[in-house]
Amino acid sequence: MRATYMYEAGDVRVQDAPDPAIEQPTDAIVRIVRSCVCGSDLHPYHTMAAADGPAPMGHEFLGTVEELGPEVSGLRRGDLVVAPFAFADNTCEFCREGLHTSCPDGGFFASDAGGAQAEAIRVPQAQGTLVKLPGDVDDGLLPSLLTLADVYGTGYHAAHQARVRPGDSVTVIGDGAVGLLAVLSARQLGAERIILMGRHKDRTDLGRFFGATDVVAERGEEGITKVRDLTGGHGTRAVLEAVGHMPAYEMAVGAVRPGGVISRVGVPQYEEAPVGFGSLFGPNVTLTGGPAPARAYMEELLRGVLDGTVQPGRVFDRTLPLEQTPEGYRAMDQREALKVLITP
Amino acid sequence: MRATYMYEAGDVRVQDAPDPAIEQPTDAIVRIVRSCVCGSDLHPYHTMAAADGPAPMGHEFLGTVEELGPEVSGLRRGDLVVAPFAFADNTCEFCREGLHTSCPDGGFFASDAGGAQAEAIRVPQAQGTLVKLPGDVDDGLLPSLLTLADVYGTGYHAAHQARVRPGDSVTVIGDGAVGLLAVLSARQLGAERIILMGRHKDRTDLGRFFGATDVVAERGEEGITKVRDLTGGHGTRAVLEAVGHMPAYEMAVGAVRPGGVISRVGVPQYEEAPVGFGSLFGPNVTLTGGPAPARAYMEELLRGVLDGTVQPGRVFDRTLPLEQTPEGYRAMDQREALKVLITP
Repeated sequence: MRATYMYEAGDVRVQDAPDPAIEQPTDAIVRIVRSCVCGSDLHPYHTMAAADGPAPMGHEFLGTVEELGPEVSGLRRGDLVVAPFAFADNTCEFCREGLHTSCPDGGFFASDAGGAQAEAIRVPQAQGTLVKLPGDVDDGLLPSLLTLADVYGTGYHAAHQARVRPGDSVTVIGDGAVGLLAVLSARQLGAERIILMGRHKDRTDLGRFFGATDVVAERGEEGITKVRDLTGGHGTRAVLEAVGHMPAYEMAVGAVRPGGVISRVGVPQYEEAPVGFGSLFGPNVTLTGGPAPARAYMEELLRGVLDGTVQPGRVFDRTLPLEQTPEGYRAMDQREALKVLITP
Repeated sequence: MRATYMYEAGDVRVQDAPDPAIEQPTDAIVRIVRSCVCGSDLHPYHTMAAADGPAPMGHEFLGTVEELGPEVSGLRRGDLVVAPFAFADNTCEFCREGLHTSCPDGGFFASDAGGAQAEAIRVPQAQGTLVKLPGDVDDGLLPSLLTLADVYGTGYHAAHQARVRPGDSVTVIGDGAVGLLAVLSARQLGAERIILMGRHKDRTDLGRFFGATDVVAERGEEGITKVRDLTGGHGTRAVLEAVGHMPAYEMAVGAVRPGGVISRVGVPQYEEAPVGFGSLFGPNVTLTGGPAPARAYMEELLRGVLDGTVQPGRVFDRTLPLEQTPEGYRAMDQREALKVLITP
């Protein structure tokens, strides 16, 4: 089959690769119908050393079941399925609590199993991981359904972990796909005031469509001042941080109200950060978040996608065939595209 | 009057000082009946520069109302009252949310108003700050009532912010007064498993009396391994950190279960700490806590003290007259005393 590999920072190639095969009785093979490039794929695109490559890429996909291991039940060949970016057994104590990303039988696609920017993929723990979609679903819904694999679930996780509630005030940092879907999720959970911090007008316009009430284009101290000016000087109760770089963390600390919550879903590109008396401790600010257990939210979020209440798939603004995946990375890196959908 | 001042690390003196007087119409003057030395007083006792002294000391007290500003109502001369370590108006939006430590009219005793290791003290925002106690209360209850000013409220805050619930598993780091009262608070909130990390047998024995089910004397990696061994390998859902030094933070990260909460009430003696993928983010661990809004918990915690359900005053194991306050610092610093009560 054809599959995407990153060789080092800036060097992404589509090449021949072995067809995936059942390795464990709990595996499935899925033929990919839609996949995409993630904002988090840009982190290695900027920094990966040649010694760490070639690495299979892609962790978001929907597709049709092609083959099932003998221990997988509840699925059939030909079923249309979507997978979260983290596979999991969906039966252990962590999965039962909704923390599929900590499943001892689990792992992450691309790093712990094959990449999804490919023609087909091996899915470990298939019964727990794959969620069956209606077979007769309209093709126009596929982009929104694909967001359940990561960006919608991740934006929702940010809002969920911050316990966003009706009437709430929320700042969302980052106008990438996750930030925009954090806006949508905060709105879904009833937030009244949603301040989106982002600099790209086409993206923040989509953020307004998703429910942002205010847009702050400024960054750093200037951005913090703007958020405080909009909120009577105190900041918002929740800040959803969907970037992962230190300046975004610092803006979150500056924009959160005393007693509030910073919920991070941007993969942190730092290990240490300010958490002392002057940042989190003094004002009793809570820091939460992590990799989203997208599986935990799928049934719930699927309903709104299928009935058209929400259109998270609007984050895709370019579609490319698999062979042009490297162009997708380039376009997202250059901010020419918000999120690139990949077709077989 | 006589009052306690710290001149620099290790140098505490009781000396003559001006009698406190009403400065604002919202002030009261309280004659101190009981005060004490706090574990947090030991931080400057170890590090304070001479240039920062002399500084008034003490932020925990109960006493009798001696004088009231014209805008204070609901209190009378002679009332027995207790104050939280942070004064606050108890009417602003933050106070109404139970976050008195962020009250814009508020501040901390000793640093923003007079010290409590003295004969009398000026209490700003007296109406919001002072809580009236029954006039006929037994003297034997005074130590427990005094813990409402800080250490009990602070231990309770740790458990409250961690949302400790019936059946929960909790690790408490630190066998000082706050740690021990965090044990008591976790028990009050229904925790089933309470692992106390501490090395002083007399203290951990009191911890067992307060409700600890297990004691881990080891520290660092060894201590973490012990907690994990006791909890099926995963750690406890909540970790209450009542120390404030970096090794305690690191133990908290090691002892918390994926998806769990680290709740800090030890004043952090560091500004930066690990919060990245390998510490908090990857396992979706929440970091919360801060200075306790002790005022918010007073009415609730007062009931159990008055009816004898709890005996938080057992953390006091030595009583000294005001003139011997420096000896109290020495004894606590040398771990000869857990917590020193001061009488006039």
